[in-house]
Formats: sequence, C-alpha cells, structure tokens
Amino acid sequence: MATLSDISVSASINSLSAFLFLVAFAILRLQPMNDRVYFPKWYIKGIRENPSTSGPLVKHFVNLDVRMYIRLLNWVPAALKMPEPELIQHAGLDSAVYIRIYLLGLKIFVPIALLAFAVLLPVNYTGGNFNIMSLTMKDITFGEIDKFSISNVPPASKRLAAHIVMAYVFTFWTCYILYKEYKIVTDMRLHFLASQSRRPDQFTVLVRNVPSDPDESVSEHVEHFFRVNHPHQYLTHKMVYNANKLAKMVDQKKDLHNRLIYYTNKYERKPKKRPTTKTGFWGLWGKKIDAINYYTEEIEKLSKEEVAERERVIGDPEAVVPAAFVSFRSRWGAAVCAQTQQTRNPIRWLTAWAPEPRDVYWNNLAIPFVELNVRKLVMTVALFGLIFCFMIPIAIVQTLANIESIEKVLPFLKPLIDKGSVKSFIQGFLPGIVLKIFLLVLPMILMEMSKIEGYVAVSDLEARSAGKYHLFLLVNVFLGSIVAGTALQQLKEFLNKSASEIPRTVGVSVPMKATFFITYIMVDGWAGVAAEILRLVPLVIYHLKNIFLVKTEKDRDEAMDPGSLLWPITEPRLQLYFLLGLVYSTVTPILLPFIIIFFAFAYLIFRHQIINVYNQKYESAASFWPDVNRRILIGLMISQFTLLGLLSTKQAANSTPVLIVLPILTFWFHKFCKNRFESAFRKFPLQDAMIKDTLERATEPQLDLKAYLKDAYTHPVFKGGQVELMDIDEEEDEYHLVATKRTSRKGSQAGTTEGSPEDRTGIYAV
Amino acid sequence: MATLSDISVSASINSLSAFLFLVAFAILRLQPMNDRVYFPKWYIKGIRENPSTSGPLVKHFVNLDVRMYIRLLNWVPAALKMPEPELIQHAGLDSAVYIRIYLLGLKIFVPIALLAFAVLLPVNYTGGNFNIMSLTMKDITFGEIDKFSISNVPPASKRLAAHIVMAYVFTFWTCYILYKEYKIVTDMRLHFLASQSRRPDQFTVLVRNVPSDPDESVSEHVEHFFRVNHPHQYLTHKMVYNANKLAKMVDQKKDLHNRLIYYTNKYERKPKKRPTTKTGFWGLWGKKIDAINYYTEEIEKLSKEEVAERERVIGDPEAVVPAAFVSFRSRWGAAVCAQTQQTRNPIRWLTAWAPEPRDVYWNNLAIPFVELNVRKLVMTVALFGLIFCFMIPIAIVQTLANIESIEKVLPFLKPLIDKGSVKSFIQGFLPGIVLKIFLLVLPMILMEMSKIEGYVAVSDLEARSAGKYHLFLLVNVFLGSIVAGTALQQLKEFLNKSASEIPRTVGVSVPMKATFFITYIMVDGWAGVAAEILRLVPLVIYHLKNIFLVKTEKDRDEAMDPGSLLWPITEPRLQLYFLLGLVYSTVTPILLPFIIIFFAFAYLIFRHQIINVYNQKYESAASFWPDVNRRILIGLMISQFTLLGLLSTKQAANSTPVLIVLPILTFWFHKFCKNRFESAFRKFPLQDAMIKDTLERATEPQLDLKAYLKDAYTHPVFKGGQVELMDIDEEEDEYHLVATKRTSRKGSQAGTTEGSPEDRTGIYAV
Repeated sequence: MATLSDISVSASINSLSAFLFLVAFAILRLQPMNDRVYFPKWYIKGIRENPSTSGPLVKHFVNLDVRMYIRLLNWVPAALKMPEPELIQHAGLDSAVYIRIYLLGLKIFVPIALLAFAVLLPVNYTGGNFNIMSLTMKDITFGEIDKFSISNVPPASKRLAAHIVMAYVFTFWTCYILYKEYKIVTDMRLHFLASQSRRPDQFTVLVRNVPSDPDESVSEHVEHFFRVNHPHQYLTHKMVYNANKLAKMVDQKKDLHNRLIYYTNKYERKPKKRPTTKTGFWGLWGKKIDAINYYTEEIEKLSKEEVAERERVIGDPEAVVPAAFVSFRSRWGAAVCAQTQQTRNPIRWLTAWAPEPRDVYWNNLAIPFVELNVRKLVMTVALFGLIFCFMIPIAIVQTLANIESIEKVLPFLKPLIDKGSVKSFIQGFLPGIVLKIFLLVLPMILMEMSKIEGYVAVSDLEARSAGKYHLFLLVNVFLGSIVAGTALQQLKEFLNKSASEIPRTVGVSVPMKATFFITYIMVDGWAGVAAEILRLVPLVIYHLKNIFLVKTEKDRDEAMDPGSLLWPITEPRLQLYFLLGLVYSTVTPILLPFIIIFFAFAYLIFRHQIINVYNQKYESAASFWPDVNRRILIGLMISQFTLLGLLSTKQAANSTPVLIVLPILTFWFHKFCKNRFESAFRKFPLQDAMIKDTLERATEPQLDLKAYLKDAYTHPVFKGGQVELMDIDEEEDEYHLVATKRTSRKGSQAGTTEGSPEDRTGIYAV
Repeated sequence: MATLSDISVSASINSLSAFLFLVAFAILRLQPMNDRVYFPKWYIKGIRENPSTSGPLVKHFVNLDVRMYIRLLNWVPAALKMPEPELIQHAGLDSAVYIRIYLLGLKIFVPIALLAFAVLLPVNYTGGNFNIMSLTMKDITFGEIDKFSISNVPPASKRLAAHIVMAYVFTFWTCYILYKEYKIVTDMRLHFLASQSRRPDQFTVLVRNVPSDPDESVSEHVEHFFRVNHPHQYLTHKMVYNANKLAKMVDQKKDLHNRLIYYTNKYERKPKKRPTTKTGFWGLWGKKIDAINYYTEEIEKLSKEEVAERERVIGDPEAVVPAAFVSFRSRWGAAVCAQTQQTRNPIRWLTAWAPEPRDVYWNNLAIPFVELNVRKLVMTVALFGLIFCFMIPIAIVQTLANIESIEKVLPFLKPLIDKGSVKSFIQGFLPGIVLKIFLLVLPMILMEMSKIEGYVAVSDLEARSAGKYHLFLLVNVFLGSIVAGTALQQLKEFLNKSASEIPRTVGVSVPMKATFFITYIMVDGWAGVAAEILRLVPLVIYHLKNIFLVKTEKDRDEAMDPGSLLWPITEPRLQLYFLLGLVYSTVTPILLPFIIIFFAFAYLIFRHQIINVYNQKYESAASFWPDVNRRILIGLMISQFTLLGLLSTKQAANSTPVLIVLPILTFWFHKFCKNRFESAFRKFPLQDAMIKDTLERATEPQLDLKAYLKDAYTHPVFKGGQVELMDIDEEEDEYHLVATKRTSRKGSQAGTTEGSPEDRTGIYAV
C-alpha cells in the first residue's frame, strides 16, 4: 500500500512533466515556422496567411520578440474566450459538444467530491478498522490513503449506512445531470440542424440492395421505382460506381509524384549530381537508375492506365454497384423516404439518410445483405476473441521476437546483438515494446474490423470502433487491473464462480487498487493530455515534409496536417475516468480531486486544440451523444454492482436488497433517455423539414436544386477533373458523357463551416 | 425410474379418456339442440339456420337418425378437407397461420424422430452403461426407458460423438424449417394484406400525446398540424373521448336488461305468480319487491343517466383525450405518417398504425408518456416477483384457507366441517385447489398487467400477455419440474452457483425426468386437447341461457358463445412441447413419438374448431409470427445448453467448445430472421400502398372516402344509436351535432371475412 508521500512524489513528477510540455508548447508555438503546426485551422479557413515577410530572414523562422515569451500562458484565456455559439460556427457542433463531455465530468464530480469529502472522509477516517487490525496483526502495514477509504470502516458497522445513502445521492445526481445535459445537447443538435444552410444530404437518401431487373439497367430501375412510389417528390439520382481500383491508382500516382518532387528538389539544390534510385522494393535494392527520369516515366505510364480504368468504370455496366444516392425535391420528401420501408422484401431497396458527402465510406456500398450478416457474426466472434485472448498472440510474438530468433532471421546482426549491454536491453524491453505497439495499433485493428462489418459512413465506422474500444478498455484495463491476470483467465474464473460472487471479487479488490489508479490518472490523464497540445509527431512530420517535398504554397498547404479529434480513441479512454470516478466516489473519495483536475485540464487543452488546430473531416451534428450517455450509465451501473459486492463482504449483506434497486433504476433511466431523446439523433422530424422547405421556397423560388445536387455524391476520384461521370438527363432520358475538364467542386461541398470575418475571429488565435 | 409398462398403462388411460371425449363429442354434436354450440361459426356467417322444424318436436332436440351415429369420426375428413386459401377466407389469416404451428411441429419433429430412432436409439441401447453399473451396484434398478436414453452411454465414451453430430443436424434442420416457414408466413401475410378489401385502418393513423395549445381546441390543433405537415394527404380526423364511465353504464344496463328478460320469461311460464326479487346485493337479501316492475324502473333510471352522461362527454372539452385517429386520402399517406417522426420532441405527436377498429383498447388511449414509462418499470418488477415468488402468496392463501380459519370466518359451517370425511377431504384437496385456481386465473392476471402497461390494441395486449406467460411456464413448469423446489429457491441456488454449473445442474436432471414429461404430454396434451373439442363449459352455459334468457331468435344468437382461439394461453403452452421435443431429441429420443402424436392430434382438433366454432375478435394478419419464431429458437438454445451441461458431466468436457458454437449460431440465426422478415410484420411498405391506391383510384374514381371513414373509429358506446359524436365539417370548419338516430355500422367494418356461398362451404360442416 502506497503512502501519501509516494503519491505526492508521483504527483509532482507528473505535474512537472505536464508543465514542461506546456512550456515547450508555449515556446514552440511562438515560432513563425511552426505556425502551420499550431494554428492550421485558421489557415484552412483562409483567415491566416503566412507570417509577414518584412524584416530579416531569420524572423521567418524564429520569434525574436522577447516580450511575447513573458506571457507563457496567454493562450489560456484565448482558448476560453470564444463563446459557445461562435465555437459551433467555427469548429462545428461535433467538436463543441465533444468538449462538453469534459464539462459534464466537472458538473458530475465537483458536487460529488464536495459531498464525499464532507461526509464520507470523516466517516471513513474515524472508522478505526486499521487501528483494531494493526493491534491484532502487527506485521501488516496500511497506507495512509486507506485510512480515508471504506477499508477503514470495520465490518458490519452502522457507518456503512452513510455509504449506501451516498450511493443513492450520487446516482440521482449523476442521472439528473445526464438528463439535463442530454436535453441541452438535443436542443443544440436540433437548433444546429434547423439553422444549417442548404446541404446535399438534406435532400438525399442512400438506397442499397437495388434488385436487378432483366429489362432495365440499374439506373433506369432506380429512377422508375422512385418516380412511381414517390411521384411528386423524386428529383434525380446518382449511381454508385465500384471505383476502388481507380482510387488505388490515384493514390499510387500521388505517391510517385511526391517522390519525383523529392528528387527534383534534391537535384535543384545540388545541380552537379543527378539523383539516382534503385528499382527494387522501396528503392532499397536492384538496378541503379536516374531517379527523375524513372519517376517521370512511371507517372506517365500510370496516367495512361488510370485513363483507361476511368473509361472502363464509366462504360462498364458491371462497375455499377446496386446502390444509388436518390435526391428529392424537398427535405420532406427525403425525410419520408429515409424513414419508411419501400417494398415487401425488407432486404431490398433499403433506404437511409445519405451521409454527408465527406462522410461516405465508398468501399462498403456494394455489400449484399446476407453477406453483411455473416460479416457481423464473424466480427463479433473475432472481437470476443480479441478482447479475451488478446494476450495470446502478443505472447507468441514476444516469444518469437527474442534474441535467438532475431539472430536466426537476420544473421548479420549477430555480432552486434551478442554484445552484453545490447542483449540485455533487447531482452528487457522487447516484450514490453511489442505490447505497447499492439496497444497503439489496436484502434486501427478495431477500425478495420468495423470496416469489414460493412458500415457505409465514416461516422458509423468511428462510432462502432469506439464501442469496441470501450469494451476492450473496460475488460482489459479496468477489470484487468483490479482482478489480476489476463482477461481469458478472468473469464474462466468468472465462469467458474457464482453470479453473486463476481461483484464480490471485484468489490474486494477495488479499494486496494486506489493508489494504482491515482497514478494512472496522473500519467495517462495529466501528462498525456499535456502532450496532446505539444503535437510532437505532426511537428516533426511537417518540418520533414517542408524540407523535402514543399515547393509551392499549395504544397505547403498540403504538408500541413491539422489532424482531428480522434473520437473513437479519445472518447472510450475518457469514459474510463467517468467509470473510475463513479466507482471510487463511495469507496475512496480521495481519488476524486485527481479526476476533477484531469477534466478541467483536458477541457482547457481540447478547447484550445479545437479552436486552433483540429479540422474535422465530417460533421455528424453530435450524433454520438446517445453513446456517450449510455457508456456513462454503464459506468454508473458497474460502480453500483461494485459497491454491492464490496458491502456484501463487509458482512452487511442486508444492504444487498437496498442496493440492488439502484442498477434497476439506472437501467430504467437508460431506457427512459432512449425513448425520450434518441430519435432526435436518428430521425429527422417532418415538421422541421417542412418548415425549412417552406422557408426556402419563399426566399429562393428560383433555386435550381438539380444543378445544386449535380456533383454532390460523385465518387471523389471523379472529382479531380478530366472525365465526368455519365449523368441522366431528365428531358432526354439518355446517357451522355461530359468529358470536358471542370474545376473541382470540392470547396462548395463543405458548406457547413463558413469562414467568419477575419477581424472577429482573429482575436482567438493569439 | 418408470418401466415401459408404467408408461403403457398411463398411455392407455390417457388414450382412453381422449377417446371418450371424442365419442361424447361425436354424439353431442349430432343433436340439433347443440347445433349452436358446435357449429356457431356458420350461424355467425349467416350460412346455417336453425335445424328444419318439419317432423315431430323431439327432432328439434335429439337426433334419431341411427345411421349418423355409425360414422363417429366423419368430422375428421371434413376438418381436413377445406383447402388453406378457403380456410383463410373463412376463418381469417390469424387462425389459418395458428394451426400451421402444429404442422410446423410435425415438420420439425417427424424427420428428427426418424433420424434419432435410426441413429441414437441403437447407440444408446448398446451403450451398456447400466449393465456395467448393475454389475457393480446391484441394488440400483434402472427403468427400461433409460436404456434408450443417453444415460446408458458410459462416461467419456466415443459414442457421445453421435449425440454431438445429431445436435448439429437437429439444429440445422430446425433452423431450415423455421426459415422456410417464416418465409411462407411472410408471403401469406403480404398476400393477405394485398388482397384485403378496403378497411378503415389502412387509411388511418393513431396519434397520441397531442400537446395542448392555449389558442386552439385539441381537435383544431390536430387538424392544423396535419394540414401543414401532410398537406396533400390529410383527409379528416376523429378525436378520442374518455367514455369509460359511459361504457360502464351501457354494460350495467345490459345486465339489468338480462335480468328483466329472465323474470319476464319466468312470469310468462307461470302467469299465476308474479316473480319477486330482493333489493340488496345480487338479489340475495333486502326488501322483497316485484321483480319486473323493479327492473323496468331501474332501466329507465339508468337510461336517463346514460343520456345525461352521453351529452356531458360530447359537450365537455375535458372529456377529449389528447389522442386522435387521423385519416388520410390514400394508404400511401397513412403509411408515410405512421412510419415517420412528426416533431422534434419524440414524445409528442406519436404516430403509429391505427389498430383495426375492433382491436382498439379504448381505456389506454389517454396515458401520458412519462407515466407509461413508470408503469412499464413497475410491471417488470411485478412480473419478476410473480414468476419467482409466485409460491409465496399461494402458500399464504393455503395457510389461511385451512379448516380452522374457515370455521372462524363462517362459523355456521362448523358442524358440517367437523365431520371426519369432509374434514379430510378439505385438508387434502384445498391447497391443491388453491394452486389450480391460481394457475387458471394467471393468464387473466398477466392480461391485467399488460393492460396496466398501457398498450392500445387488444392484439398488443395479447402478445404481451403471451410473452409473460411463456416466461412463467419456462421457469415454473420446465425448470421447476427439472430442478425441484420453487422458482425462488432455484434463483437463489443459481445465483450461488457458477455460470458454467447451471447448465450442468439442469443437464444432469434432464434424462431422469423423461418419464415425467411423457406423462405430462399425455395428460395435458392428448386428453387436454380432446377436451377442447367437447366444449363442456360453453355447452352448459348455452343451455342455461337458452332456458332462462332466450325469447327471440336474436336472443338465441346472443346466447351463442363461439369463443375464440385463446392465443395468449394456448401458444405459450404449445411452446412447451417444442421445448421438450428439442431438449429430449438428443437425450431421450423415445419421447418424440408422444410429441408427434400431440401435434398431429391438436392440428386436427384445432382445424375443426377453427372451421366450425371459433369466431376471432380481430384480425392481425399473423402479426404474432415473429414471437412464435423467437420462442422456438429460445427453446432450441435451451436444448443446446442442456446438452452442453449434460455432456460436461459425462467427462466429455472437450465437447464444450464444439457445442458452444451452436447457441451462437442459433442466436445469429435469430438476428438474421429478425432483419430479414420482421419488418414485414411491423411496417407497411410504400410500394404496396401505392399499388392499392392506384388500383382503387382506377376502379372506383367516385369513392367518397370521407363518408366511408366517418364512423369507423367512433367509440363503441356511441355506435349503438341515439346521439352521434360531433364531427368536423371540412367546408364550414365548425362543430355541429348530428343527433339523428342511425343504424349501427358495425357490420360494415368487419369486411375481412366475407361469407362464401352456402352451397360451397356447407360441405365442411357435416
């Protein structure tokens, strides 16, 4: 058991590292050369240009104005200054609601902490269990932390009633705050949707599993079907093409282009020597050749192939996928079509709201229904395996990645490895590194699994990955830390234990792990969040790109990587703090201040990042909130079961019926929230659609909606230019190829986040 | 352990009693005076009239034609003769699909039984476990039945592989048949819906939780809302009135009327003495008065009160409930409105398909949203209590209902009770009778619970009751028989056991209970079903009514009680047979023939009853099928877990991973069925609506839909006549009272089951 001084040492180390990160950030962000790393959002919005070029050259790269260094923390008020409505306009509703989760943490835990400190700390501290125990068993020492925890209350004591009452109070408080927050977020979402300007997805429905018809092409079939069944509403539609191969070619070409630029830059700097490369894998071996000529030829070759593929996709009826984006004359028509069933066979003509164009995951649009079901089954089994057996492949890799096998595979490394210090280093760190790498790669694995499951919107994919990751963290971090052993062993143990014994096992270990989790909060929460603001990886990558690849301003724009809120990773991790706070609120309330500091600090950091850095790839209008709410309630229920188990080992078995009421009420509250709010996040009400339609008809009677929607749902590889996809002409009803070069319409689609006037928003990016 | 001869004795007793029921039925149904008991369906359809009155008077009551008695079973071919399409037209789709469940039982279990007899019986019989055991332990005797069961296979034998393979085969066969059947029923339903003639519910949506508006009446508010948000589709609407008090008065009046008729009849038969009654409760005590005068006066008094209440309901805005039946110009419009969300607030303006007019449960239309949630929570807890603690109140009643307390409450019975034989009779039978009464009353209790939960359609209420009853039977009959002790004790035991031990506990007991369940099948299944056809209770009641209440032909029509398929009772009981069949198919296959006989026999009986007797109160177009499918799959999963537990005690623990795959696959199959078929039972596709609309517009361009829908959704108490509800007139937009007397439109609503020509259908009712 850790003493208070252990904790304070750990606290000071972590606070110091967090502080150092902040100092580094404060210095680095003032350098003009890092401007695009720390303020990319403003560049994307076109409000910030490159730093002014008057003055000496050095000023381009380093800030020499000493006065600015004095106010190290002057970004803090700037981050807090922007009011919420403006934040929504600036960064989108997703981001604005996301940081509300941290605020929610404060709203829940500050009052709980105050109450717990006022009531439970004195009750625990004067419990005197350890005094008794240390008298009887002299060889056991207890940490001071434990004096403040429920462990200090002797078994069957009347004092435990205080914990039960507090469990009720905390549950009701949490539910009350959650209800209020759900209501606020729902209103924000509805207000946001209502005030949104015209967007293609408001008029569009995604139709999947279009049945094939022997007499018509798929496109004709779609048109006829909707003309008949939505007679006054159908406007136009866009077929989906299987352009996955083409997309791969475009990517490949871009990569070759980057290499060409790299070698051209190299040649320009040292014109004496023409750069060479090798033809083999990654330019590592093979014949030596002139790099610039080689890549120019390769690009030309690929360009030709690409044109051929492009024409094949457009001409070949096989490339048409049985899915289409169908657009309607009004939002009302689209809302009706998205929410209703079209035909008798519920697996044909599946309609759903079209995702925002940026949000479409094109690769999955062609998966047939039965296959989808099989994929989901396989992925469920795989997820189960991943969660409960994740240590097995790691162990295998760790066994393989030992000294002997490395020497076998790469014999030329043998003399190096055999040196004593290197050997011990590898033996000591390699297994840990393998685990670390796996944990870093895990979200990507989960994302791939969600992709295999076949969701068609990036937002759906992320929501599913987040769900999987949350489950993983719950089992392997929370349960895994409390009950020692791998998840598979735990599962075995749990299966061999009675249902009522499981919360007991967990409950008994919980108070003993308090110090471990306090350290975890400081390392992962405090220092981890501070590292986020420093953006070390994007900083390095940007400067590397800047040196090797950037020639024009456009290149520099592309080298800039604003990143985005990694929702499917950060949210599940964040949920762990809610879980810990709720579990320990009655058991070891001294943990609560650490959590409160985390929430406050993270709120500040992420608010800054949202304003100045992140550029979200799509806007889902906070559609993730039901998940957030559900996961906090899962945490609440786990905390209730834990307390129940803990108290039943404290010889307070009579408390069980009193405490079992709490999870039942919590579950009911979850159901209630679901009924009350969730449809606002899943459906689009007809009344709102009608209001927007009516308003639009009054203000813009001349609007040519068809022209507006023309290219919205074109596969991105067709957007770049050259050839445009065939299009149905309503008057003539025949296909014709428009092969003229067009400028990209990319810009017009974003549409949601309009730049506000420079003079107003400039103040937030100091 | 029972021997084969025990079983055959039981079988012959039960077969004999079933046979006797059939003989009694065969004789009774031939008597003309019972004609209305055994063939009410034909009277209701107006095809059958009273038996011809030519010949002597005795022929009215007794059939003297000896030739007809010879062919005792001539109703059997008649019951099987009617082809299914005609059956659907005659009795409705619900009934026709219901008897398909019995056929489904045959389809599943006949091949399973053949395979099990061919493979498992020899494997078990030559297993020789009992030979070994009886050599070592001479004092244990085994029943012959057990030689055919898995118990005869020694532990860790290779023979168990046969059972595992068979479990796979049976699972796949069951799922295959279920899939095929689901597909057929779905097609039948869609075909039925498509071929249905015009019905008011096709055009109508039930709107609940209409928000109040300070400026408008509820009715105006409803009209304006739908005129705005469904502009081309809204036709008219009908407000719902809280006429529960009025309905009670109407019932009361009918009751008084019956008494009046009873005394008038009495007086007519014995004109010398005017009948008297007493004013007190049930005419048991109080002042003696002239009965005919008394009831005439009472009826007059009540009639006046009824008129006053009728006027109050119509005039009082407080009597208007915030719910309405909104009708649309087309089926398409109604389908759109029913499937979409209307406003931002998902608990306002809730729309759903209107139930068929006969199907509406009027009392529940006014319950607000939050209250509904609370009611559901309370009822869930109550159901849990009822299932797991149902023995507690029974035990209390049994304790109270002993000799001493009866003597205390009813002291005048004391001399009677104290007689030895009476005393022992009461002591021996009373507790059993209390339990029996409870089990008889249970479906009614469950129905009341469902009513409290607030469902607005009788079909929903029945579906929920069936679900509750199924759970009850599963826990208290199946588990309760296998693991001795009450459900509460089981729950306690299970909670204290490990998760993997529960299937083991159940699995071990399963083979030992085979003989018990064989007897159960014969008593409850064979004899019970035979008793169904005899209709003893309706027979007695009809003749009593006929003697005391019938004066005119109309009275005789009313005295006739055709009854209906008691779906919420019979279906869950039926599911028990599927469960038993699936559980014992691998364990003790010798049980299967008993189940097959049950299914075949019940199919025959219920087909006869549906053709000749039952008159369904509403038509849900087989909307119960998803429940049937789900429950059979639950049974399948229970059977898989049971086998898993059983084999793990047979020292074949390696089988666990092989067998755990089955429930996972079964669960996946359930999900697959749900996705694939369920929406056909819950939603109405737009394409079908459009086809019907287009056809109707072409064939009946002059149809006055508004007039057609006018009275469809009027509360039944307003249907009888006298005063008609206020109605919105589209042209004038003002309320006016149409107080003219009208004939009831009840007849025109049924609409679904049109009588076929007498000469054709006559042949089925021999």
